[in-house]
Amino acid sequence: MRVGVIGGGQLARMMIAPAVELGVELRVLAEQPEMSASLAATAVGDYRDAAIVAEFARDVDVITFDHEHVPQDVLRALVDAGVRVHPGPDALQFAQDKIRMRTRLHELGVPQPEWAVAESAADVDAFARDNGGRAVVKTARGGYDGKGVRVVESGAEVADWLEALGEGEQLLLEELVPFTRELAQQVARRPSGELGVYPIVETVQKDGVCAEAIAPAPSAGARVERVAADIGVAIAEGLGVTGMLAVELFETDDERILVNELAMRPHNSGHWTQDGAVTSQFEQHLRAVLDLPLGDTASLQPWSVMVNILGGPGEGSVEGRIPEALEGHPSAKVHTYGKSPRPGRKVGHVTAVGDDLDSVAYEARAAAAAFSDDIRVG
Amino acid sequence: MRVGVIGGGQLARMMIAPAVELGVELRVLAEQPEMSASLAATAVGDYRDAAIVAEFARDVDVITFDHEHVPQDVLRALVDAGVRVHPGPDALQFAQDKIRMRTRLHELGVPQPEWAVAESAADVDAFARDNGGRAVVKTARGGYDGKGVRVVESGAEVADWLEALGEGEQLLLEELVPFTRELAQQVARRPSGELGVYPIVETVQKDGVCAEAIAPAPSAGARVERVAADIGVAIAEGLGVTGMLAVELFETDDERILVNELAMRPHNSGHWTQDGAVTSQFEQHLRAVLDLPLGDTASLQPWSVMVNILGGPGEGSVEGRIPEALEGHPSAKVHTYGKSPRPGRKVGHVTAVGDDLDSVAYEARAAAAAFSDDIRVG
Repeated sequence: MRVGVIGGGQLARMMIAPAVELGVELRVLAEQPEMSASLAATAVGDYRDAAIVAEFARDVDVITFDHEHVPQDVLRALVDAGVRVHPGPDALQFAQDKIRMRTRLHELGVPQPEWAVAESAADVDAFARDNGGRAVVKTARGGYDGKGVRVVESGAEVADWLEALGEGEQLLLEELVPFTRELAQQVARRPSGELGVYPIVETVQKDGVCAEAIAPAPSAGARVERVAADIGVAIAEGLGVTGMLAVELFETDDERILVNELAMRPHNSGHWTQDGAVTSQFEQHLRAVLDLPLGDTASLQPWSVMVNILGGPGEGSVEGRIPEALEGHPSAKVHTYGKSPRPGRKVGHVTAVGDDLDSVAYEARAAAAAFSDDIRVG
Repeated sequence: MRVGVIGGGQLARMMIAPAVELGVELRVLAEQPEMSASLAATAVGDYRDAAIVAEFARDVDVITFDHEHVPQDVLRALVDAGVRVHPGPDALQFAQDKIRMRTRLHELGVPQPEWAVAESAADVDAFARDNGGRAVVKTARGGYDGKGVRVVESGAEVADWLEALGEGEQLLLEELVPFTRELAQQVARRPSGELGVYPIVETVQKDGVCAEAIAPAPSAGARVERVAADIGVAIAEGLGVTGMLAVELFETDDERILVNELAMRPHNSGHWTQDGAVTSQFEQHLRAVLDLPLGDTASLQPWSVMVNILGGPGEGSVEGRIPEALEGHPSAKVHTYGKSPRPGRKVGHVTAVGDDLDSVAYEARAAAAAFSDDIRVG
């Protein structure tokens, strides 16, 4: 079984461990040498180049992804050539284009924030006026980790984005949801239809970047769990997702659950599954894209907490802090991405599991803090 | 952090997953190309050749092992050259030579079967006469998985081994212990002394090869657990073991615990830890040989069962049976070794964890049975 992964980042890297155990030969098309997944990198090249991607795909059983940036025409050329691509271009378009995503979720009746499209400053002004004086403006394509998102009061504040719009392009406008917290729902889906639904997770964002995930989301309650799972399944099936799907959700104080973003790949909110679930999201993604029977999505312990290592140490390497991180934290599981420290960059994460949420969270946070020079655990 | 592993078998292969996550650069000196650990194989060569091993060791932080067959003079040359070797030759000699092991355990007061050495058929006859008419005869070196072991009634039955003895060489004689079951105790030890003690395991052998392991050993009782842990710690400290130590034990019907064999590396009896413990034995071995703080050895679920895939399918590859093995067994975790099927060969294993021993054992056995054409799960 050969899986070709386009993109050599940490998500591809974290597929290496389950691939080795499951006997899957992992091949990675990396953007450049010395990336996170370099151990499995069998090719280096531009994923926007149809010829390079076609050559890479020539002798693998299935193509999948570390990110959602491979252009539609490159993907469709693969499919036309008979290559199995999971998730396929028909599904990926909704992860690549936020306006298409909002449109399709509306058709499916999935609950989401108020939204509209904008081609002019007047469109933005009108939307803000109708939605409490503010609008969340997003570029339809290319945003991640808070990039490509601005909260504005008037269209003038996104004049640069409006000016840069090409023929037929629009910006996405969303209401600023008065959420109480953010949740994430992961679902795996095989091409043949089998579904695997993970426990719902609470995520904590910091400066637009995921800082922590707690599984299961504390005090979520059976109704919220069911609504989130139903949304996950409706999107996986309605959009034809294959592999792992992550649905980022807002929970409001009036207990509404609204879809924020989608990702059709393993996702930061599911890193806890490496140490806390019977089947990690990385193993599950490989199983799903290979159309193998899915694994059990249950938790191994009552609580799992994942804390991102953001930035890394001011001096020295991430790995150089491992002795300090492990000392006194025997339950902390450290995962590194082989990246150099840089402010705000995701360079690794720490997970801990156990039956007491406070101590699990403390262990994960304390171990993660050892990798930074500016974080104190209170 | 760079760890050099001598030997490219499945134990080296199973170090790849935790090495990637922990940011350890794993380098493997494989005996030949296309071995289990080929993904991490950076060199191919004969581990008995001091020059090849020295070259391999040149730019790693520590040397460790997939097996215990590297000759003492090769190991001592490394140490003399300033290479960190864990476990070191002083410890490894006891895993390499069963007579030295028995002698040293006797000095340490560790409980073991009656034993003696033999240079002649008369020695064997006399020992058998004093021990119920039979003797377990073992070659001091080179045996594994039941090889190099014979149960005899007279010295004539090992005439070939006696004849092959070199100057100063002897055979080991042991009483045939009337054991009720076999147990295994794993202990991790860092060079700086920290210890990690794993739950005691029951192992089930079939034709001299480990077929199953159950963690924790059912109904072991606090006394047996304590005695086994004490034996493990006494051996780890007394023999100066660094890295993972596995102590194979006999439990007798009068509740004695006697040491059968030792291994100073990850061991088949600890494969369950990959899915059933906070820290797998493979991660723990890397941490111990790097002198990093050890990880929590606790179980994640009440029961873990590991079933070896012995032989593999009569036709086709091991990996070809994965869809069948996973179908209907979502809790089964399949681990393959990248080996071709061959009768009796260890080609992989399956683990399952959960809170009901019967169903956990059933899932692991049923999934493992899918890899063989001659095994039926009753």
